[in-house]
Amino acid sequence: MQSGPIVFHFDFVSPFAYLASTQMDALASRSGRAVDWRPVLVGVLVNQVMKMPSPPELPLKGPYLRRDALRLSEWLGVPFAYHDLPGARSVLALRVFLLLKDRDEQAAVRFANRVFQRLWVDGLDITGFDDLEASLEGLGADVAALRSAAVEPPARAALKRSVDDAIAEGVFGVPFFQVDRQALWGVDRLPMLEHWLEHGSWSRRPSATPEQ
Amino acid sequence: MQSGPIVFHFDFVSPFAYLASTQMDALASRSGRAVDWRPVLVGVLVNQVMKMPSPPELPLKGPYLRRDALRLSEWLGVPFAYHDLPGARSVLALRVFLLLKDRDEQAAVRFANRVFQRLWVDGLDITGFDDLEASLEGLGADVAALRSAAVEPPARAALKRSVDDAIAEGVFGVPFFQVDRQALWGVDRLPMLEHWLEHGSWSRRPSATPEQ
Repeated sequence: MQSGPIVFHFDFVSPFAYLASTQMDALASRSGRAVDWRPVLVGVLVNQVMKMPSPPELPLKGPYLRRDALRLSEWLGVPFAYHDLPGARSVLALRVFLLLKDRDEQAAVRFANRVFQRLWVDGLDITGFDDLEASLEGLGADVAALRSAAVEPPARAALKRSVDDAIAEGVFGVPFFQVDRQALWGVDRLPMLEHWLEHGSWSRRPSATPEQ
Repeated sequence: MQSGPIVFHFDFVSPFAYLASTQMDALASRSGRAVDWRPVLVGVLVNQVMKMPSPPELPLKGPYLRRDALRLSEWLGVPFAYHDLPGARSVLALRVFLLLKDRDEQAAVRFANRVFQRLWVDGLDITGFDDLEASLEGLGADVAALRSAAVEPPARAALKRSVDDAIAEGVFGVPFFQVDRQALWGVDRLPMLEHWLEHGSWSRRPSATPEQ
C-alpha cells in the first residue's frame, strides 16, 4: 500500500474548504495517512488564473452554491452559518498559518481549525491580526513575534510560493486534495477520496481474486 | 413519502450528463420514482447566462475535468471514451428527443440513451439527422416525419422553451437533478440524491425514533 500524505489545499474564505477541514482528522485516522495542509488564495486561482468571476457572484450558480454549503453541512453533520463579513480576508491568517507550520505543524493545524470555526461557525472576522489572537492561545507560539513576522517579506513570499506551487500542480479551487498522484476537487468528493485510500482504485467493482 | 418524479436535465454534448444518464434506470427502479428527462443547451447556460468560458477550455480546470470524466466512468463502472468530434452539436438531437417525448416518453428515453452511447462510447457524430437515424430504429417513430418536423418552428420553439424553463428554475449546468424542490448539480452528487430519495433529509445521522 502507498502511504504518502493527503495534501489538502485550503483557503479560510471558502465555506467548502471549511466543510472539508472538519473531516481531515477523521480521514487521517481512518486511512493512516498524514494530512498536509497547504494554503492557497482562492481568489487568485479563480479571478487571476482562470479569469472567472467568483462563483458566489455568478447568476444561477451563486444562489445554488449558497444553499449547497448549508446542505453539505447537514450531510457532514457539522455546524455552519453564513457570516455577515463580506470584507473578510484570509491573507494574513494564511501567512500566520505558514509561519506556525514552519516550526510546529500540529499547532498550525489547530490554529487553522480554530480560524475556520471562527469565520464559518461563530461568524467572527479573521482579517486583522487582532482577530487572530484568540486562535493562537495555548499553541506555544510567540504571538508578538508572529504579529510582526506576518507582515514581513519572508511571510509574504512564503504564501506567494504556496499559491504558485499549487497553480503549477493544477489546483484551481478549494478544497483540493492530492494523494498518490491523484487530484480531487470539492468537499463532495470526500467519498471518492476515501474509496481511493481504501482500494487504490476508482472502480467500485470487487477486484478479481487470482484462482488458487 | 413524497413520490414526484426525479427531473434530469441533460445535454448530449456533456460527458458528465452521459455518465449520469447511465444511472437513471437503476435510480428509478431503486427509488420507485419516474425520471423526467429534460433537454437543455449547456452552452447557453454557461456562455450566455453565466457569461463564462466553457469549462473544458479553462486553464487548470479544463485538464482536470478531462481526467475526471474518465475516472468517474471507472467509478460508475460504465464504458466511456473521448470522441474526436469537436464540432459535434446536440441541437437537432434534442429537438428530436422532444418530438418523441410528446408522443411516447419511453421511446424518447431509449433514443436519448442511444444518442449518448453513440457520442460517448462509440465516438460517432450526432449532429445531423443522418447521424441520428440508427438511434431511431425500432422505436415506432415515423422517421421521415421527424426529419422534417425537427427543423420546423414548433420543434425549435419547444427546445427554446425547455432551455428557458430550466434557466427560470436555476439550472446552470448538466447533469442537474430536481426532486421534492431540492436541486443537485453534478454526476458526483448521485450518492446524495440517493440518500435524499431514501431518507427525505440530507443528514446521515439516524433519525430519532419516538419512544413507545
